[in-house]
Amino acid sequence: MPTIVHKYGGTSVGTPEKIKAVAEYVKSVRDAGNSVVVIVSAMGHTTDELIDLMHKIAPNPHPREYDMLVSTGEQISAALLAMALQELDCPSVSLTGGQAGVVTEDIYKKARIKDIKLERIRKEIKEGKVVVVTGFQGIDSKGDIITIGRGGSDTSAVAIAAALKADVCDIYTDVTGVFTTDPRIVKEARKLKTISYEEMLELASLGAQVLHPRSVECASIYGIKIHLRSSTRRDETGTIIEEASKMENKEAVRGIALDNNIARIGLLKIPDRPGTAAKIFGALAEEKVNVDMIVQSIHSAGTLADMAFTVEKPDLKKAMEIAKKVGKELKAEEVISDPNVCKVSLVGIGMVSQPGTASKMFDALAKEKINIEMISTSEIKISCVIKEDEGKKAVQLLHKTFGLDKIPQ
Amino acid sequence: MPTIVHKYGGTSVGTPEKIKAVAEYVKSVRDAGNSVVVIVSAMGHTTDELIDLMHKIAPNPHPREYDMLVSTGEQISAALLAMALQELDCPSVSLTGGQAGVVTEDIYKKARIKDIKLERIRKEIKEGKVVVVTGFQGIDSKGDIITIGRGGSDTSAVAIAAALKADVCDIYTDVTGVFTTDPRIVKEARKLKTISYEEMLELASLGAQVLHPRSVECASIYGIKIHLRSSTRRDETGTIIEEASKMENKEAVRGIALDNNIARIGLLKIPDRPGTAAKIFGALAEEKVNVDMIVQSIHSAGTLADMAFTVEKPDLKKAMEIAKKVGKELKAEEVISDPNVCKVSLVGIGMVSQPGTASKMFDALAKEKINIEMISTSEIKISCVIKEDEGKKAVQLLHKTFGLDKIPQ
Repeated sequence: MPTIVHKYGGTSVGTPEKIKAVAEYVKSVRDAGNSVVVIVSAMGHTTDELIDLMHKIAPNPHPREYDMLVSTGEQISAALLAMALQELDCPSVSLTGGQAGVVTEDIYKKARIKDIKLERIRKEIKEGKVVVVTGFQGIDSKGDIITIGRGGSDTSAVAIAAALKADVCDIYTDVTGVFTTDPRIVKEARKLKTISYEEMLELASLGAQVLHPRSVECASIYGIKIHLRSSTRRDETGTIIEEASKMENKEAVRGIALDNNIARIGLLKIPDRPGTAAKIFGALAEEKVNVDMIVQSIHSAGTLADMAFTVEKPDLKKAMEIAKKVGKELKAEEVISDPNVCKVSLVGIGMVSQPGTASKMFDALAKEKINIEMISTSEIKISCVIKEDEGKKAVQLLHKTFGLDKIPQ
Repeated sequence: MPTIVHKYGGTSVGTPEKIKAVAEYVKSVRDAGNSVVVIVSAMGHTTDELIDLMHKIAPNPHPREYDMLVSTGEQISAALLAMALQELDCPSVSLTGGQAGVVTEDIYKKARIKDIKLERIRKEIKEGKVVVVTGFQGIDSKGDIITIGRGGSDTSAVAIAAALKADVCDIYTDVTGVFTTDPRIVKEARKLKTISYEEMLELASLGAQVLHPRSVECASIYGIKIHLRSSTRRDETGTIIEEASKMENKEAVRGIALDNNIARIGLLKIPDRPGTAAKIFGALAEEKVNVDMIVQSIHSAGTLADMAFTVEKPDLKKAMEIAKKVGKELKAEEVISDPNVCKVSLVGIGMVSQPGTASKMFDALAKEKINIEMISTSEIKISCVIKEDEGKKAVQLLHKTFGLDKIPQ
């Protein structure tokens, strides 16, 4: 019997009516001859409400107690969904992460899943039950409740699908799939039938916030096919995320992402010595500032270098303090910053074999007089930092330039 | 170092402000040189809200899922109280029933506690932490979450106090102690300094709903001293519930309870044969109807008997159907019922040595023309069933007759 894993986000189980609708659908999938394991998030805004309540008591509580508190949200929705299934005469049982055998690292709030001990899930499936598991949580070696970070229910679903060797992991969400770019920016944006793990990872971490990046990483490691689809329009096929080798469609550019949440910092004219980069980024890492793009350029005669990098906008102040301090030590002539920038990225697994892509991008931007401030490339991605107020225009322009409005569905 | 167990009910932790106030107080008890373990109920109406939500999905869900759902209420309040303590720089940790080692029978919704494995609690105490444990729940042999019935947090507290051999179990609630009778009925009602387990049990199960009867039973078995006291007026001494032998005050009558939630059924003129009682009460038990008082009287010549008993008012209809059916089989001449009755009970451990108490009670009622419909006595209790509309008057009268308004505090 095929095993299918479903995951429903908070919006999909936000009200008793929605929970009942999910139950009817899950039952129909089971009645069609599948074993079904369902991973659920907390109902609607439950997690936020718990956090609001918490803030009235402790602005910054110990992460252990935070996990103890917020994990109740998923326990409530899991129990309710199991009840809703039973009301339809569909045998069902709800399990906490711990009961389901989800074992995590001993790190509160953002642990990784270490192991899934399947005994209990297997036993319940064997008894013909739909197994409903709380997403976003597990237990550590002490038996404490551990959450795996916000959005982590996607990762729970993929990890359980991998452990069960499930045929597919259906992630039901409030979008109908992955699009060539944000449809709010480009109205011709089209839904992709398939996308590779690598492309999805680049898009997910580039601001197209559809799937949690760790879930994609996990799916890629275990070769789990993810079907990202709409929880309300269930007849509609969504986007399949799978290995690149299995995909038919191999355009150079598959999607365009825009990330406005970045700021740029530059250390200019640093005497070029070994260890410069280590010094700057070591100091930033120590203060837990995440650095995204890094570009080092060399001035004439190889004696002076410029170092530019981007950080998330909220980290700019802290990052600048560090940059100024380190800049002084390194004898940089100037330390500058710009919060009004954004990052436009082309993503596509076919890029590696079509070397003209980058120049085509630069050319298109130049024709519209959009100045490029930084460039960074990988095998499947080209990112340009430009002025923030030109971001939307750049995405619209590039979407057309690369024919993404014409991708066959 | 003395070990003290505190228990706070839903009202006492109903808002973030109240949780902070409890934390300050718990910290002060710890700072005075005690190890403190705190058992908490769910905040205010959380449990009722969860049940309302549940009813929109499943009117009568599987008890396993019910337990999974409602147990989240205590988990939330426990985590929040631990956070509030930490905010005051008081080391603290919250534990679910399962983490605290509370092992129950494999019966959902109303299990009994079988065992408390103290390793985790002991370890946390040793590390100097205030341990906050969710009341009302444990886990069974499968690791499933089990609740021990509503009001069961009192029992959790006493069981944990017993396992820890705690010096005292302080139960903080919204009354200041146990009174000679309901102060809403008799304004001269006085708070008792001490009361024995047996008296408290009779009072608790007779409608003076202050403490869960099972918690008293458990305290009695393990000799745990309970201090029932006010969560808002913490300076005030409440009522100590302890072994009778340790008490100074031994009046015949210690308290008077009124229970309006009863109805009377009578099977009249039954041919007297062995097995009659077994037949009637066997049939009622099979349908899960709880029977309280039972009185069998014998008619002339020992050939015909009357059997009268009381049930809870909501069970009357079901009980009458059974009584009529069995009455027919037993050839009873008549089966009658009366919902408009109540039960007035005198409770006191000294009664056993003062045989005049019953006649004094009957006499007082007779003088006021209050007709007694049924009488039932035990070693420490005399109960009379009378008309419901005479209940209050009877309690006021008896409170005065037995001098309860003059008990020294």
